[in-house]
Amino acid sequence: MAAPALAIHGGAGLIARGDQEFLALARAGLGRALRSGTLILEQGGPALLAVEAAVRVLEDDPCFNAGRGSALTSEGRVEMDAALVDGATGRAGALAGVTTLRHPISAARLLLERGPHVLMAGPGAERHATALGAETIDPALLITPRALEQLERFRQSRVPASQGTVGAVACDTGGRLAAATSTGGTTGKLPGRIGDSPVIGAGTWADARCAVSATGLGEAFLRTAFAHALASRIAAGIAADEAAHQALALVRDSGGNGGCIVVTRTGVIVTLQDDDMFRASWSATQPARVAIFRDD
Amino acid sequence: MAAPALAIHGGAGLIARGDQEFLALARAGLGRALRSGTLILEQGGPALLAVEAAVRVLEDDPCFNAGRGSALTSEGRVEMDAALVDGATGRAGALAGVTTLRHPISAARLLLERGPHVLMAGPGAERHATALGAETIDPALLITPRALEQLERFRQSRVPASQGTVGAVACDTGGRLAAATSTGGTTGKLPGRIGDSPVIGAGTWADARCAVSATGLGEAFLRTAFAHALASRIAAGIAADEAAHQALALVRDSGGNGGCIVVTRTGVIVTLQDDDMFRASWSATQPARVAIFRDD
Repeated sequence: MAAPALAIHGGAGLIARGDQEFLALARAGLGRALRSGTLILEQGGPALLAVEAAVRVLEDDPCFNAGRGSALTSEGRVEMDAALVDGATGRAGALAGVTTLRHPISAARLLLERGPHVLMAGPGAERHATALGAETIDPALLITPRALEQLERFRQSRVPASQGTVGAVACDTGGRLAAATSTGGTTGKLPGRIGDSPVIGAGTWADARCAVSATGLGEAFLRTAFAHALASRIAAGIAADEAAHQALALVRDSGGNGGCIVVTRTGVIVTLQDDDMFRASWSATQPARVAIFRDD
Repeated sequence: MAAPALAIHGGAGLIARGDQEFLALARAGLGRALRSGTLILEQGGPALLAVEAAVRVLEDDPCFNAGRGSALTSEGRVEMDAALVDGATGRAGALAGVTTLRHPISAARLLLERGPHVLMAGPGAERHATALGAETIDPALLITPRALEQLERFRQSRVPASQGTVGAVACDTGGRLAAATSTGGTTGKLPGRIGDSPVIGAGTWADARCAVSATGLGEAFLRTAFAHALASRIAAGIAADEAAHQALALVRDSGGNGGCIVVTRTGVIVTLQDDDMFRASWSATQPARVAIFRDD
Protein backbone atom coordinates (compact mmCIF):
# COMPACT_ATOMS: atom_id res chain seq x y z
CA MET A 1 0.00 0.00 0.00
CA ALA A 2 1.37 3.40 -1.00
CA ALA A 3 1.55 6.32 1.43
CA PRO A 4 -1.13 8.78 0.33
CA ALA A 5 -0.13 12.40 -0.23
CA LEU A 6 -1.84 15.59 -1.37
CA ALA A 7 -0.56 19.03 -2.32
CA ILE A 8 -2.63 22.01 -3.41
CA HIS A 9 -1.86 25.53 -4.58
CA GLY A 10 -3.86 28.71 -4.94
CA GLY A 11 -1.57 30.66 -7.24
CA ALA A 12 1.91 32.20 -7.12
CA GLY A 13 3.11 35.78 -7.30
CA LEU A 14 3.96 38.65 -4.99
CA ILE A 15 1.28 38.45 -2.31
CA ALA A 16 0.62 41.61 -0.27
CA ARG A 17 1.32 41.11 3.44
CA GLY A 18 -0.91 43.96 4.56
CA ASP A 19 -4.42 42.60 4.20
CA GLN A 20 -4.63 40.38 7.27
CA GLU A 21 -8.32 39.68 6.83
CA PHE A 22 -7.86 38.40 3.26
CA LEU A 23 -4.82 36.34 4.21
CA ALA A 24 -6.75 34.70 7.06
CA LEU A 25 -9.61 33.85 4.69
CA ALA A 26 -7.22 32.47 2.09
CA ARG A 27 -5.41 30.40 4.71
CA ALA A 28 -8.71 28.98 5.95
CA GLY A 29 -9.77 28.23 2.36
CA LEU A 30 -6.56 26.32 1.67
CA GLY A 31 -7.13 24.32 4.86
CA ARG A 32 -10.69 23.46 3.83
CA ALA A 33 -9.58 22.41 0.34
CA LEU A 34 -6.78 20.26 1.75
CA ARG A 35 -9.15 18.55 4.17
CA SER A 36 -11.72 17.80 1.48
CA GLY A 37 -9.01 15.95 -0.46
CA THR A 38 -7.37 14.20 2.48
CA LEU A 39 -10.74 12.90 3.71
CA ILE A 40 -11.01 10.95 0.45
CA LEU A 41 -7.41 9.69 0.52
CA GLU A 42 -7.59 8.63 4.20
CA GLN A 43 -10.58 6.45 3.37
CA GLY A 44 -8.63 4.79 0.55
CA GLY A 45 -10.43 6.76 -2.18
CA PRO A 46 -8.88 7.50 -5.58
CA ALA A 47 -6.42 10.35 -6.19
CA LEU A 48 -8.61 11.52 -9.09
CA LEU A 49 -11.54 12.25 -6.76
CA ALA A 50 -9.27 13.81 -4.12
CA VAL A 51 -7.80 16.40 -6.49
CA GLU A 52 -11.23 17.16 -7.94
CA ALA A 53 -12.68 17.66 -4.44
CA ALA A 54 -9.85 19.97 -3.36
CA VAL A 55 -10.12 22.09 -6.50
CA ARG A 56 -13.92 22.35 -6.19
CA VAL A 57 -13.47 23.99 -2.77
CA LEU A 58 -10.98 26.47 -4.24
CA GLU A 59 -13.29 27.18 -7.22
CA ASP A 60 -16.11 28.12 -4.81
CA ASP A 61 -13.79 30.27 -2.66
CA PRO A 62 -13.74 33.94 -3.82
CA CYS A 63 -10.17 34.34 -2.51
CA PHE A 64 -8.75 32.37 -5.43
CA ASN A 65 -8.56 32.88 -9.19
CA ALA A 66 -10.77 30.00 -10.36
CA GLY A 67 -14.54 29.59 -10.49
CA ARG A 68 -15.98 32.31 -8.27
CA GLY A 69 -13.23 34.94 -7.94
CA SER A 70 -11.81 34.33 -11.42
CA ALA A 71 -9.70 37.05 -13.03
CA LEU A 72 -11.57 39.11 -15.62
CA THR A 73 -10.83 39.51 -19.33
CA SER A 74 -10.12 42.89 -20.90
CA GLU A 75 -13.88 43.08 -21.47
CA GLY A 76 -14.70 42.35 -17.82
CA ARG A 77 -15.96 38.80 -18.29
CA VAL A 78 -14.97 35.49 -16.70
CA GLU A 79 -13.47 32.85 -19.05
CA MET A 80 -12.28 29.78 -17.18
CA ASP A 81 -9.85 26.97 -18.07
CA ALA A 82 -9.44 23.63 -16.27
CA ALA A 83 -7.84 20.21 -16.71
CA LEU A 84 -7.94 16.89 -14.89
CA VAL A 85 -5.54 14.01 -15.59
CA ASP A 86 -5.64 10.46 -14.22
CA GLY A 87 -2.06 9.21 -14.14
CA ALA A 88 -3.12 5.60 -13.56
CA THR A 89 -5.05 5.31 -16.83
CA GLY A 90 -3.72 8.25 -18.88
CA ARG A 91 -7.25 9.58 -19.26
CA ALA A 92 -7.67 13.34 -19.36
CA GLY A 93 -10.36 15.98 -19.71
CA ALA A 94 -9.94 19.73 -20.16
CA LEU A 95 -12.00 22.82 -20.95
CA ALA A 96 -11.04 26.34 -21.97
CA GLY A 97 -12.89 29.61 -22.17
CA VAL A 98 -16.02 28.43 -20.35
CA THR A 99 -18.21 31.10 -18.81
CA THR A 100 -21.28 29.45 -17.30
CA LEU A 101 -19.99 26.40 -15.40
CA ARG A 102 -19.85 26.50 -11.61
CA HIS A 103 -17.12 23.84 -11.38
CA PRO A 104 -14.95 23.67 -14.50
CA ILE A 105 -12.88 20.92 -12.83
CA SER A 106 -15.95 18.68 -12.52
CA ALA A 107 -16.84 19.39 -16.14
CA ALA A 108 -13.29 18.28 -16.99
CA ARG A 109 -13.99 15.05 -15.08
CA LEU A 110 -17.12 14.48 -17.17
CA LEU A 111 -15.04 14.90 -20.35
CA LEU A 112 -12.36 12.58 -18.92
CA GLU A 113 -14.94 9.89 -18.23
CA ARG A 114 -17.40 10.32 -21.07
CA GLY A 115 -15.44 11.97 -23.89
CA PRO A 116 -15.49 11.80 -26.84
CA HIS A 117 -12.96 14.64 -26.78
CA VAL A 118 -10.10 15.45 -24.40
CA LEU A 119 -10.03 19.24 -24.83
CA MET A 120 -12.94 21.54 -25.69
CA ALA A 121 -13.39 25.32 -25.64
CA GLY A 122 -16.08 27.97 -25.58
CA PRO A 123 -19.84 27.58 -25.99
CA GLY A 124 -19.43 24.14 -27.60
CA ALA A 125 -17.56 22.91 -24.52
CA GLU A 126 -20.27 24.31 -22.26
CA ARG A 127 -23.11 22.77 -24.24
CA HIS A 128 -21.44 19.35 -24.21
CA ALA A 129 -20.48 19.53 -20.51
CA THR A 130 -24.00 20.64 -19.59
CA ALA A 131 -25.48 17.79 -21.63
CA LEU A 132 -23.23 15.43 -19.63
CA GLY A 133 -24.59 16.90 -16.40
CA ALA A 134 -22.23 19.76 -15.45
CA GLU A 135 -23.68 22.34 -13.06
CA THR A 136 -24.23 25.80 -14.54
CA ILE A 137 -24.16 29.18 -12.80
CA ASP A 138 -25.11 32.76 -13.64
CA PRO A 139 -21.78 34.24 -14.88
CA ALA A 140 -22.48 37.41 -12.85
CA LEU A 141 -22.14 35.35 -9.65
CA LEU A 142 -18.55 34.44 -10.57
CA ILE A 143 -17.45 38.09 -10.51
CA THR A 144 -16.08 39.39 -7.20
CA PRO A 145 -15.28 42.97 -6.10
CA ARG A 146 -11.64 41.91 -5.76
CA ALA A 147 -11.50 40.76 -9.41
CA LEU A 148 -13.11 44.03 -10.54
CA GLU A 149 -10.51 46.02 -8.57
CA GLN A 150 -7.67 44.03 -10.15
CA LEU A 151 -9.06 44.67 -13.64
CA GLU A 152 -9.33 48.39 -12.85
CA ARG A 153 -5.71 48.39 -11.68
CA PHE A 154 -4.65 46.52 -14.83
CA ARG A 155 -6.49 49.01 -17.04
CA GLN A 156 -4.61 51.87 -15.39
CA SER A 157 -1.14 50.30 -15.18
CA ARG A 158 -1.19 47.63 -17.95
CA VAL A 159 0.83 45.52 -15.49
CA PRO A 160 -0.81 42.10 -15.10
CA ALA A 161 -1.92 41.31 -11.55
CA SER A 162 -0.34 38.35 -9.76
CA GLN A 163 -0.88 35.14 -11.69
CA GLY A 164 -3.44 33.08 -9.87
CA THR A 165 -4.45 29.52 -10.60
CA VAL A 166 -5.53 26.74 -8.32
CA GLY A 167 -4.44 23.15 -8.48
CA ALA A 168 -4.04 19.86 -6.68
CA VAL A 169 -1.90 16.74 -7.07
CA ALA A 170 -2.35 13.50 -5.15
CA CYS A 171 -1.15 9.96 -4.62
CA ASP A 172 -3.67 7.48 -3.21
CA THR A 173 -3.18 4.30 -1.18
CA GLY A 174 -3.13 2.34 -4.44
CA GLY A 175 -0.18 4.44 -5.67
CA ARG A 176 -2.36 6.06 -8.33
CA LEU A 177 -1.57 9.68 -9.16
CA ALA A 178 -3.78 12.50 -10.42
CA ALA A 179 -3.49 16.22 -11.17
CA ALA A 180 -6.07 19.00 -11.43
CA THR A 181 -5.74 22.67 -12.35
CA SER A 182 -8.42 25.37 -12.66
CA THR A 183 -8.13 29.09 -13.37
CA GLY A 184 -9.69 32.30 -14.55
CA GLY A 185 -6.41 33.08 -16.34
CA THR A 186 -4.66 36.44 -16.23
CA THR A 187 -6.38 39.71 -15.38
CA GLY A 188 -7.00 41.74 -18.55
CA LYS A 189 -6.36 38.81 -20.90
CA LEU A 190 -7.84 39.14 -24.37
CA PRO A 191 -11.09 37.20 -24.86
CA GLY A 192 -10.28 33.77 -26.27
CA ARG A 193 -6.87 33.50 -24.59
CA ILE A 194 -6.07 29.98 -23.37
CA GLY A 195 -3.36 29.60 -20.75
CA ASP A 196 -1.30 26.58 -19.75
CA SER A 197 -3.73 25.22 -17.14
CA PRO A 198 -6.03 23.25 -19.51
CA VAL A 199 -3.16 22.03 -21.67
CA ILE A 200 -2.09 18.48 -20.80
CA GLY A 201 1.71 18.61 -20.58
CA ALA A 202 1.90 22.38 -20.00
CA GLY A 203 0.09 23.33 -16.77
CA THR A 204 -1.20 19.88 -15.82
CA TRP A 205 0.22 16.36 -16.09
CA ALA A 206 0.02 12.99 -14.41
CA ASP A 207 1.43 9.59 -15.29
CA ALA A 208 2.50 6.46 -13.38
CA ARG A 209 5.43 8.29 -11.73
CA CYS A 210 4.33 11.83 -10.90
CA ALA A 211 1.50 14.37 -10.93
CA VAL A 212 2.15 18.05 -11.65
CA SER A 213 0.11 21.27 -11.46
CA ALA A 214 1.65 24.63 -12.36
CA THR A 215 0.85 28.28 -11.75
CA GLY A 216 2.44 31.37 -13.25
CA LEU A 217 2.67 33.23 -16.52
CA GLY A 218 0.86 30.69 -18.72
CA GLU A 219 2.47 31.70 -22.00
CA ALA A 220 5.94 30.60 -20.84
CA PHE A 221 4.60 27.33 -19.44
CA LEU A 222 2.93 26.65 -22.82
CA ARG A 223 6.06 27.42 -24.83
CA THR A 224 8.17 25.07 -22.70
CA ALA A 225 5.63 22.22 -22.28
CA PHE A 226 6.48 22.70 -18.61
CA ALA A 227 4.69 19.83 -16.89
CA HIS A 228 5.81 17.24 -19.41
CA ALA A 229 9.36 18.62 -19.34
CA LEU A 230 9.26 18.04 -15.57
CA ALA A 231 7.68 14.58 -15.83
CA SER A 232 10.10 13.41 -18.54
CA ARG A 233 13.00 14.29 -16.20
CA ILE A 234 11.44 12.23 -13.41
CA ALA A 235 10.95 9.40 -15.91
CA ALA A 236 14.68 9.68 -16.71
CA GLY A 237 15.56 9.11 -13.05
CA ILE A 238 16.07 12.70 -11.90
CA ALA A 239 14.77 13.41 -8.37
CA ALA A 240 11.44 15.26 -8.28
CA ASP A 241 12.77 18.45 -6.68
CA GLU A 242 15.70 18.69 -9.10
CA ALA A 243 13.36 17.95 -12.04
CA ALA A 244 11.05 20.76 -10.87
CA HIS A 245 14.00 23.16 -10.59
CA GLN A 246 15.20 22.32 -14.09
CA ALA A 247 11.73 22.69 -15.63
CA LEU A 248 11.12 26.00 -13.85
CA ALA A 249 14.50 27.19 -15.18
CA LEU A 250 13.19 26.52 -18.72
CA VAL A 251 10.18 28.73 -17.92
CA ARG A 252 12.47 31.52 -16.67
CA ASP A 253 14.57 31.25 -19.85
CA SER A 254 11.31 31.68 -21.77
CA GLY A 255 10.54 34.93 -19.96
CA GLY A 256 8.16 33.56 -17.36
CA ASN A 257 8.04 32.76 -13.68
CA GLY A 258 5.74 30.93 -11.31
CA GLY A 259 5.60 27.74 -9.35
CA CYS A 260 4.38 24.19 -9.25
CA ILE A 261 3.39 21.32 -7.03
CA VAL A 262 4.50 17.74 -7.64
CA VAL A 263 3.61 14.44 -5.97
CA THR A 264 5.35 11.17 -6.77
CA ARG A 265 4.40 7.54 -6.21
CA THR A 266 6.68 7.38 -3.18
CA GLY A 267 4.73 10.22 -1.57
CA VAL A 268 7.38 12.87 -2.18
CA ILE A 269 5.80 16.33 -2.24
CA VAL A 270 7.57 19.20 -3.97
CA THR A 271 6.27 22.77 -3.85
CA LEU A 272 8.52 25.13 -5.74
CA GLN A 273 8.02 28.79 -6.56
CA ASP A 274 9.83 31.95 -7.58
CA ASP A 275 7.65 34.23 -5.43
CA ASP A 276 5.02 33.67 -2.80
CA MET A 277 2.49 30.90 -3.39
CA PHE A 278 -0.74 29.94 -1.66
CA ARG A 279 -0.12 26.28 -0.90
CA ALA A 280 -0.87 23.39 1.42
CA SER A 281 0.20 19.78 1.70
CA TRP A 282 -0.38 16.62 3.67
CA SER A 283 0.85 13.07 3.58
CA ALA A 284 0.50 9.93 5.67
CA THR A 285 3.88 10.74 7.22
CA GLN A 286 3.66 14.55 7.37
CA PRO A 287 0.99 16.64 9.15
CA ALA A 288 -1.12 19.13 7.19
CA ARG A 289 0.74 22.35 6.42
CA VAL A 290 -0.57 25.64 4.98
CA ALA A 291 1.83 28.32 3.71
CA ILE A 292 1.63 31.55 1.75
CA PHE A 293 4.88 33.51 1.68
CA ARG A 294 8.08 32.35 0.10
CA ASP A 295 9.83 32.16 3.47
CA ASP A 296 6.93 30.43 5.29
CA MET B 1 26.32 26.01 -42.57
CA ALA B 2 23.68 23.38 -41.90
CA ALA B 3 22.15 21.26 -44.67
CA PRO B 4 18.59 22.52 -45.16
CA ALA B 5 15.76 20.00 -45.06
CA LEU B 6 11.98 20.09 -45.30
CA ALA B 7 9.27 17.49 -44.72
CA ILE B 8 5.53 17.97 -45.09
CA HIS B 9 2.48 15.84 -44.51
CA GLY B 10 -1.15 16.02 -45.56
CA GLY B 11 -2.68 13.61 -43.07
CA ALA B 12 -2.52 9.90 -42.27
CA GLY B 13 -5.11 7.16 -42.45
CA LEU B 14 -6.35 4.51 -44.83
CA ILE B 15 -6.31 6.29 -48.19
CA ALA B 16 -8.52 4.83 -50.96
CA ARG B 17 -6.49 3.72 -53.97
CA GLY B 18 -9.39 3.94 -56.41
CA ASP B 19 -9.81 7.64 -57.05
CA GLN B 20 -6.95 8.27 -59.45
CA GLU B 21 -8.01 11.82 -60.21
CA PHE B 22 -8.02 12.81 -56.52
CA LEU B 23 -4.70 11.08 -55.87
CA ALA B 24 -3.09 12.91 -58.80
CA LEU B 25 -4.39 16.25 -57.49
CA ALA B 26 -3.17 15.47 -53.96
CA ARG B 27 0.24 14.42 -55.25
CA ALA B 28 0.52 17.65 -57.26
CA GLY B 29 -0.54 19.67 -54.22
CA LEU B 30 2.11 18.06 -52.05
CA GLY B 31 4.69 18.87 -54.73
CA ARG B 32 3.61 22.52 -54.87
CA ALA B 33 3.70 22.84 -51.07
CA LEU B 34 7.14 21.24 -50.91
CA ARG B 35 8.50 23.57 -53.59
CA SER B 36 7.12 26.68 -51.91
CA GLY B 37 9.07 25.75 -48.78
CA THR B 38 12.26 24.60 -50.48
CA LEU B 39 12.43 27.83 -52.51
CA ILE B 40 12.79 29.72 -49.24
CA LEU B 41 15.34 27.31 -47.75
CA GLU B 42 17.47 27.20 -50.93
CA GLN B 43 17.80 30.97 -50.78
CA GLY B 44 18.97 30.76 -47.16
CA GLY B 45 15.62 31.87 -45.76
CA PRO B 46 14.41 30.93 -42.27
CA ALA B 47 12.80 27.58 -41.44
CA LEU B 48 9.90 29.45 -39.83
CA LEU B 49 8.90 31.05 -43.15
CA ALA B 50 9.47 27.81 -45.09
CA VAL B 51 7.04 25.80 -42.96
CA GLU B 52 4.48 28.61 -43.02
CA ALA B 53 4.73 28.83 -46.83
CA ALA B 54 4.32 25.06 -47.29
CA VAL B 55 1.31 24.90 -44.97
CA ARG B 56 -0.34 27.91 -46.68
CA VAL B 57 -0.33 25.98 -49.96
CA LEU B 58 -1.93 22.96 -48.28
CA GLU B 59 -4.52 25.20 -46.54
CA ASP B 60 -5.61 26.58 -49.93
CA ASP B 61 -5.70 23.11 -51.52
CA PRO B 62 -9.16 21.49 -51.23
CA CYS B 63 -7.58 18.01 -51.24
CA PHE B 64 -6.40 18.42 -47.65
CA ASN B 65 -8.09 18.79 -44.27
CA ALA B 66 -6.98 22.34 -43.38
CA GLY B 67 -8.23 25.75 -44.51
CA ARG B 68 -10.30 25.11 -47.65
CA GLY B 69 -11.27 21.44 -47.51
CA SER B 70 -11.44 21.29 -43.71
CA ALA B 71 -13.42 18.50 -42.07
CA LEU B 72 -16.84 19.59 -40.83
CA THR B 73 -18.20 19.55 -37.28
CA SER B 74 -21.32 17.60 -36.31
CA GLU B 75 -23.20 20.81 -37.18
CA GLY B 76 -21.63 21.07 -40.63
CA ARG B 77 -19.32 24.01 -39.91
CA VAL B 78 -15.57 24.48 -40.29
CA GLU B 79 -13.58 25.03 -37.06
CA MET B 80 -9.84 25.16 -37.67
CA ASP B 81 -6.81 24.71 -35.40
CA ALA B 82 -3.18 25.66 -36.18
CA ALA B 83 0.18 26.10 -34.48
CA LEU B 84 3.59 27.44 -35.46
CA VAL B 85 6.74 27.02 -33.36
CA ASP B 86 10.17 28.57 -33.88
CA GLY B 87 12.71 26.17 -32.39
CA ALA B 88 15.50 28.75 -32.54
CA THR B 89 13.79 31.20 -30.20
CA GLY B 90 11.16 29.05 -28.48
CA ARG B 91 8.44 31.44 -29.68
CA ALA B 92 5.08 29.95 -30.54
CA GLY B 93 1.64 30.97 -31.75
CA ALA B 94 -1.49 28.84 -31.99
CA LEU B 95 -5.22 29.20 -32.64
CA ALA B 96 -8.14 26.86 -32.14
CA GLY B 97 -11.72 26.82 -33.33
CA VAL B 98 -11.37 29.65 -35.84
CA THR B 99 -13.97 29.84 -38.58
CA THR B 100 -13.29 32.92 -40.72
CA LEU B 101 -9.50 32.95 -41.32
CA ARG B 102 -8.18 31.96 -44.75
CA HIS B 103 -4.76 30.95 -43.40
CA PRO B 104 -4.84 29.88 -39.76
CA ILE B 105 -1.09 29.15 -39.95
CA SER B 106 -0.34 32.78 -40.86
CA ALA B 107 -2.60 33.96 -38.04
CA ALA B 108 -0.52 31.72 -35.76
CA ARG B 109 2.59 33.48 -37.05
CA LEU B 110 1.06 36.85 -36.15
CA LEU B 111 0.43 35.57 -32.61
CA LEU B 112 3.97 34.18 -32.46
CA GLU B 113 5.42 37.54 -33.43
CA ARG B 114 3.06 39.98 -31.82
CA GLY B 115 1.49 38.15 -28.88
CA PRO B 116 0.54 38.87 -26.20
CA HIS B 117 -0.81 35.33 -25.96
CA VAL B 118 0.52 32.01 -27.27
CA LEU B 119 -2.79 30.16 -27.66
CA MET B 120 -6.22 31.63 -28.41
CA ALA B 121 -9.57 30.13 -29.42
CA GLY B 122 -12.86 31.06 -31.03
CA PRO B 123 -14.22 34.49 -31.90
CA GLY B 124 -11.73 36.22 -29.56
CA ALA B 125 -8.84 34.59 -31.41
CA GLU B 126 -10.31 35.70 -34.74
CA ARG B 127 -10.88 39.28 -33.62
CA HIS B 128 -7.31 39.55 -32.33
CA ALA B 129 -5.75 37.88 -35.38
CA THR B 130 -7.78 40.09 -37.71
CA ALA B 131 -6.72 43.19 -35.79
CA LEU B 132 -3.11 42.05 -36.28
CA GLY B 133 -3.75 41.77 -40.04
CA ALA B 134 -4.86 38.17 -40.66
CA GLU B 135 -6.77 37.58 -43.91
CA THR B 136 -10.44 36.64 -43.49
CA ILE B 137 -12.61 34.53 -45.75
CA ASP B 138 -16.31 33.72 -46.10
CA PRO B 139 -16.64 30.45 -44.11
CA ALA B 140 -18.86 29.02 -46.88
CA LEU B 141 -15.84 29.10 -49.22
CA LEU B 142 -13.96 26.72 -46.90
CA ILE B 143 -16.56 23.96 -47.35
CA THR B 144 -15.91 21.46 -50.15
CA PRO B 145 -18.20 18.77 -51.63
CA ARG B 146 -15.69 16.17 -50.42
CA ALA B 147 -15.98 17.40 -46.80
CA LEU B 148 -19.78 17.37 -47.05
CA GLU B 149 -19.69 13.77 -48.33
CA GLN B 150 -17.42 12.72 -45.46
CA LEU B 151 -19.79 14.29 -42.91
CA GLU B 152 -22.73 12.50 -44.52
CA ARG B 153 -20.83 9.21 -44.30
CA PHE B 154 -19.96 9.92 -40.64
CA ARG B 155 -23.59 10.69 -39.82
CA GLN B 156 -24.64 7.33 -41.28
CA SER B 157 -21.83 5.16 -39.90
CA ARG B 158 -20.60 7.12 -36.81
CA VAL B 159 -17.13 5.97 -37.88
CA PRO B 160 -14.79 8.97 -38.08
CA ALA B 161 -13.30 9.54 -41.52
CA SER B 162 -9.52 9.30 -41.95
CA GLN B 163 -7.74 11.76 -39.68
CA GLY B 164 -6.41 14.53 -41.85
CA THR B 165 -4.10 17.32 -40.79
CA VAL B 166 -1.38 19.13 -42.67
CA GLY B 167 2.03 20.03 -41.37
CA ALA B 168 5.61 20.94 -42.17
CA VAL B 169 8.96 20.77 -40.39
CA ALA B 170 12.18 22.37 -41.60
CA CYS B 171 15.84 23.00 -40.89
CA ASP B 172 17.38 26.05 -42.56
CA THR B 173 20.99 26.79 -43.55
CA GLY B 174 21.50 28.41 -40.15
CA GLY B 175 20.50 25.17 -38.42
CA ARG B 176 17.30 26.75 -37.13
CA LEU B 177 14.28 24.47 -36.86
CA ALA B 178 10.57 25.18 -37.11
CA ALA B 179 7.29 23.26 -37.11
CA ALA B 180 3.80 24.09 -38.39
CA THR B 181 0.52 22.17 -38.21
CA SER B 182 -2.95 23.16 -39.45
CA THR B 183 -6.20 21.22 -39.50
CA GLY B 184 -9.96 21.20 -39.67
CA GLY B 185 -9.93 18.43 -37.06
CA THR B 186 -12.00 15.26 -37.23
CA THR B 187 -15.16 14.89 -39.32
CA GLY B 188 -18.24 15.08 -37.10
CA LYS B 189 -16.35 16.48 -34.10
CA LEU B 190 -18.47 18.30 -31.54
CA PRO B 191 -18.33 22.11 -31.86
CA GLY B 192 -15.61 23.43 -29.55
CA ARG B 193 -13.42 20.34 -29.80
CA ILE B 194 -9.69 21.17 -29.87
CA GLY B 195 -7.32 18.51 -31.20
CA ASP B 196 -3.59 18.09 -30.73
CA SER B 197 -2.51 20.25 -33.68
CA PRO B 198 -2.63 23.67 -31.94
CA VAL B 199 -1.21 22.32 -28.67
CA ILE B 200 2.51 22.99 -28.33
CA GLY B 201 4.03 19.69 -27.20
CA ALA B 202 1.14 17.52 -28.47
CA GLY B 203 0.76 17.89 -32.26
CA THR B 204 3.47 20.49 -32.83
CA TRP B 205 6.92 21.10 -31.32
CA ALA B 206 10.28 22.60 -32.22
CA ASP B 207 13.41 23.28 -30.18
CA ALA B 208 17.14 23.54 -30.89
CA ARG B 209 17.39 19.81 -31.71
CA CYS B 210 14.25 18.81 -33.62
CA ALA B 211 10.96 19.92 -35.15
CA VAL B 212 7.86 17.70 -35.04
CA SER B 213 4.39 17.77 -36.62
CA ALA B 214 1.88 14.99 -35.98
CA THR B 215 -1.30 13.73 -37.59
CA GLY B 216 -3.79 11.16 -36.33
CA LEU B 217 -6.42 10.73 -33.66
CA GLY B 218 -5.82 13.99 -31.77
CA GLU B 219 -7.16 12.84 -28.42
CA ALA B 220 -4.42 10.22 -28.01
CA PHE B 221 -1.71 12.68 -29.06
CA LEU B 222 -3.03 15.14 -26.46
CA ARG B 223 -3.11 12.56 -23.65
CA THR B 224 0.48 11.50 -24.33
CA ALA B 225 1.99 14.97 -25.02
CA PHE B 226 3.24 13.22 -28.15
CA ALA B 227 5.53 15.79 -29.77
CA HIS B 228 7.27 16.67 -26.51
CA ALA B 229 7.59 12.98 -25.60
CA LEU B 230 9.37 12.55 -28.94
CA ALA B 231 11.55 15.66 -28.52
CA SER B 232 12.55 14.78 -24.95
CA ARG B 233 13.82 11.42 -26.22
CA ILE B 234 15.92 13.14 -28.89
CA ALA B 235 17.23 15.50 -26.18
CA ALA B 236 18.21 12.40 -24.19
CA GLY B 237 20.34 11.18 -27.09
CA ILE B 238 17.95 8.72 -28.72
CA ALA B 239 18.06 8.70 -32.55
CA ALA B 240 15.19 10.55 -34.20
CA ASP B 241 13.62 7.51 -35.87
CA GLU B 242 13.75 5.44 -32.67
CA ALA B 243 12.36 8.41 -30.67
CA ALA B 244 9.49 8.69 -33.16
CA HIS B 245 8.76 4.95 -32.89
CA GLN B 246 8.72 5.14 -29.08
CA ALA B 247 6.45 8.18 -29.00
CA LEU B 248 4.04 6.66 -31.53
CA ALA B 249 3.94 3.51 -29.38
CA LEU B 250 2.71 5.71 -26.48
CA VAL B 251 -0.09 6.96 -28.76
CA ARG B 252 -1.04 3.39 -29.66
CA ASP B 253 -1.10 2.42 -25.97
CA SER B 254 -3.47 5.37 -25.49
CA GLY B 255 -5.86 4.00 -28.11
CA GLY B 256 -4.75 6.17 -31.03
CA ASN B 257 -2.83 5.86 -34.24
CA GLY B 258 -1.39 8.18 -36.85
CA GLY B 259 1.95 9.49 -37.99
CA CYS B 260 4.47 12.27 -37.74
CA ILE B 261 7.27 14.03 -39.52
CA VAL B 262 10.52 15.01 -37.79
CA VAL B 263 13.53 17.04 -38.92
CA THR B 264 16.70 17.39 -36.87
CA ARG B 265 19.57 19.88 -36.97
CA THR B 266 21.69 17.40 -38.88
CA GLY B 267 19.10 17.28 -41.64
CA VAL B 268 17.73 13.86 -40.71
CA ILE B 269 14.16 13.48 -41.94
CA VAL B 270 11.84 10.93 -40.35
CA THR B 271 8.36 10.22 -41.68
CA LEU B 272 6.63 7.55 -39.65
CA GLN B 273 3.05 6.32 -39.87
CA ASP B 274 0.75 3.44 -38.97
CA ASP B 275 -1.27 3.68 -42.17
CA ASP B 276 -0.94 5.61 -45.41
CA MET B 277 0.15 9.25 -45.18
CA PHE B 278 0.26 12.06 -47.70
CA ARG B 279 3.87 13.20 -47.38
CA ALA B 280 6.81 14.78 -49.15
CA SER B 281 10.38 15.62 -48.26
CA TRP B 282 13.50 17.27 -49.58
CA SER B 283 16.97 18.03 -48.31
CA ALA B 284 20.18 19.45 -49.69
CA THR B 285 21.44 15.88 -50.06
CA GLN B 286 18.19 14.14 -51.09
CA PRO B 287 15.99 14.96 -54.10
CA ALA B 288 12.35 15.89 -53.59
CA ARG B 289 10.12 12.90 -52.91
CA VAL B 290 6.33 12.66 -52.77
CA ALA B 291 4.59 9.59 -51.33
CA ILE B 292 1.09 8.56 -50.30
CA PHE B 293 0.74 4.86 -49.51
CA ARG B 294 2.44 3.06 -46.66
CA ASP B 295 4.51 0.99 -49.08
CA ASP B 296 5.43 3.92 -51.37
